Amino acid sequence: MISFPTTNPAVFAARRAAVARAASGPCLLAAGEPPSRNYPANRYGFRASSHFLYLVGTPIEGAFLLLDGAASVLFAPAPDRDDALWHGPRPELEALGTSLGIDDVRPLEALDASLAELRARGPIATIPPQDAPTARRLSALVGSAIVERTGASLERPHDAALADALIAARLVHDEAALAQLAAAAEASAVAHVAGMRATRSAATEAHVCAAITSELRRRGMDDAYGPIVTVRGEILHSHTHDGALAPGDLLLCDVGGESPEGWASDITRTWPVSGAFSPTQRAIYDVVLEAQAAAIDVVRPGRRYRDAHEAAKRAIVAGLVRLGIFRGEVDGLLERGAAALFFPHGIGHLLGLDVHDLEDLGDRAGYAPGRTRSPRFGDRYLRLDRELVPGMAVTIEPGFYQVPGILADDALTGPLKDDLRRDVLARYADVRGIRIEDDVVCTDGEPRVLTRDCPKNPAEIEAIVRAG
Amino acid sequence: MISFPTTNPAVFAARRAAVARAASGPCLLAAGEPPSRNYPANRYGFRASSHFLYLVGTPIEGAFLLLDGAASVLFAPAPDRDDALWHGPRPELEALGTSLGIDDVRPLEALDASLAELRARGPIATIPPQDAPTARRLSALVGSAIVERTGASLERPHDAALADALIAARLVHDEAALAQLAAAAEASAVAHVAGMRATRSAATEAHVCAAITSELRRRGMDDAYGPIVTVRGEILHSHTHDGALAPGDLLLCDVGGESPEGWASDITRTWPVSGAFSPTQRAIYDVVLEAQAAAIDVVRPGRRYRDAHEAAKRAIVAGLVRLGIFRGEVDGLLERGAAALFFPHGIGHLLGLDVHDLEDLGDRAGYAPGRTRSPRFGDRYLRLDRELVPGMAVTIEPGFYQVPGILADDALTGPLKDDLRRDVLARYADVRGIRIEDDVVCTDGEPRVLTRDCPKNPAEIEAIVRAG
Repeated sequence: MISFPTTNPAVFAARRAAVARAASGPCLLAAGEPPSRNYPANRYGFRASSHFLYLVGTPIEGAFLLLDGAASVLFAPAPDRDDALWHGPRPELEALGTSLGIDDVRPLEALDASLAELRARGPIATIPPQDAPTARRLSALVGSAIVERTGASLERPHDAALADALIAARLVHDEAALAQLAAAAEASAVAHVAGMRATRSAATEAHVCAAITSELRRRGMDDAYGPIVTVRGEILHSHTHDGALAPGDLLLCDVGGESPEGWASDITRTWPVSGAFSPTQRAIYDVVLEAQAAAIDVVRPGRRYRDAHEAAKRAIVAGLVRLGIFRGEVDGLLERGAAALFFPHGIGHLLGLDVHDLEDLGDRAGYAPGRTRSPRFGDRYLRLDRELVPGMAVTIEPGFYQVPGILADDALTGPLKDDLRRDVLARYADVRGIRIEDDVVCTDGEPRVLTRDCPKNPAEIEAIVRAG
Repeated sequence: MISFPTTNPAVFAARRAAVARAASGPCLLAAGEPPSRNYPANRYGFRASSHFLYLVGTPIEGAFLLLDGAASVLFAPAPDRDDALWHGPRPELEALGTSLGIDDVRPLEALDASLAELRARGPIATIPPQDAPTARRLSALVGSAIVERTGASLERPHDAALADALIAARLVHDEAALAQLAAAAEASAVAHVAGMRATRSAATEAHVCAAITSELRRRGMDDAYGPIVTVRGEILHSHTHDGALAPGDLLLCDVGGESPEGWASDITRTWPVSGAFSPTQRAIYDVVLEAQAAAIDVVRPGRRYRDAHEAAKRAIVAGLVRLGIFRGEVDGLLERGAAALFFPHGIGHLLGLDVHDLEDLGDRAGYAPGRTRSPRFGDRYLRLDRELVPGMAVTIEPGFYQVPGILADDALTGPLKDDLRRDVLARYADVRGIRIEDDVVCTDGEPRVLTRDCPKNPAEIEAIVRAG
């Protein structure tokens, strides 16, 4: 049983101080509220905004954090008798402050009055959370015109400064954050093994998905994202689980949990339903695994993350040349768009409190200043283009997919002409999609693979699936 | 393995016709969109609005249904190449219409223009879904001032007429709906048994919760509501699962899945962690079980649902008199508020596509015209006060809880004076909370208990828990 580390309140105090220093003035961040499902009282599980979790550590529905120079003020709902009947007693605000290491905790009702003086002094920066009602409330509180889609507020220079302060802080993880990511990765690795073991006796994707997510739930973990468990691996984000499992199928599982403090993991493994890769499946699997090793090797200080993407593309094309699916020189094939025909997405993304970390701030977080997305098919889905520094966590997730829409698209396949050997490719029809994904931290030395306990050696995977 | 019935498209056509007839003019309903979690692309699982599901049967993100007299028009997103890469190919709109039994399916882009002529003719009725962006879009489409909280729109008479048409249709379930509810109940019963079996080897609430919800996931079911699995049964809506299980504890589990077409089930069982009720736990359990039987017996045509609530209150007070916890006459004790001291919530609610069915329309659905909530503590939480008719589905869920905040409240306990015998009550300290809940359909004959396969006989439960 993995037990999760608990982050010391002093860590959050240090994070608040760093963000407050880097921002240009007072900042107000919201925890947010859970959205409703089919009527107001039937709510989705609450997940506080990642910025709030980063600075406070505890999801408190409806709470707001004000950073004003060296001062942190938490505005939280006061305990309420009726609420205690339905949801259990909540701590008094003073006790809440003690447990969080925040001296100044005030009831939510005091928020507007507390901000009045600040508003008179100058602008208050904010980043709106995903839920529209809280985003609108924030907008009224700071006196700006924010709409619910994040990013819109960044037109105000002080909001941009706050965003940059949060990006600077969250791009490079402190030890406490790395401990959370490691624990989430370890538990998610165990969950994948449970999925492998459950496969032989499973009739549908849903059976395997239940086996994986059940291991996460046992540990009190939520999914970090909607689980992908599919025999149709060529659909990159397939979120249905009703497919039947057939002996010749590969099962692609992209599932990760988040630690109780909210830190994500993100693992993809692909295994044969029967417990044995066919020779064609194994050949492609090995190509993807080589591509992953080449990309992981790039995760070193000062290297550019885009180089990991390019390394994976090169390894995939070289592998497919070796198998005879492509004919020609690797460089020329790459120039003609060969990689994206079978690997149409990016090599990965930042990992942290969000599984696509900081994606609420758009490419401002993922792309270094002055860099923009490539217009090329495939490359344009790359979510991160920065130099790596120690403490940065990323995923490395190359894949091979036979997407009918891509392989039938003359604009994409045309440049390859007959160097895409469809007769050879036809022999690999039992490979719909393979992806292998690990969570990797850049260190001063070798790349640190947080998900190393999740088997990916093909013989080892086969043995686990067969043993059941 | 329970297999779920698939509702025939003709059923949805009949429902659409009935609602269109009862509404006063054209109506526009939205499926809605899934809310986002920590950034836009990380979304909660999509659950279409219940009104849309009732009339269309399939959750189609972003779709709208227009009812205009005898005509039904579905506006749905057209297939898109980029989307196919990420989410798989979607059917062409014509094929979608064929599968749904709706002749007229148009691309979403045609919605505004299609409505222009209708808007010029007169008002278009609507009921906004829970997600704020769709609610605002609907507001613009029908040209009214809707805010996201449902109910606000009912100030417009044609919206009220649509609400009443939906209430009339959804209050009394057709055969197809009952088949869905029965299948959801059957699967949820199996899930509870899995939870009982998992208890002896479980260390925490999360282990049991994972065992229960995993059985639902295996069948492709979502939770109909946030699962309650707790040793702190006195917290009515406890949604944390980190409590450790101790041998003397009772575990209260209130968990239900929904069928793939969206129909809910709602079951609560309470069992001893050790596999054996203590004599005090067993005594109270029997009181709650008697109260449930008394209330279920009221679920007959023409009876008032409030009478089931009153029957349960009476049985609980009579049982507690028998145990010596109360002293005196049952009638007098009831008048002095004895029941709500230990049973502070309502006996249940409507059940259908929503677990609290139609609760998005507030008491307009649950309370017959002219009836309002009681101001009394306990009774004021009763969600349904209508005469029962065949085809109506309700939950029956009495309970006994020792809530410290209630038992320390002089305003509530004062009227009982010494007739609440705290010395006797002290012997029952190992009963924090017991609830027993079943899903019951009113028929022309005996009440039909959909959840009858979920064991509640105490000896039977003990045997299952012990067998593991």
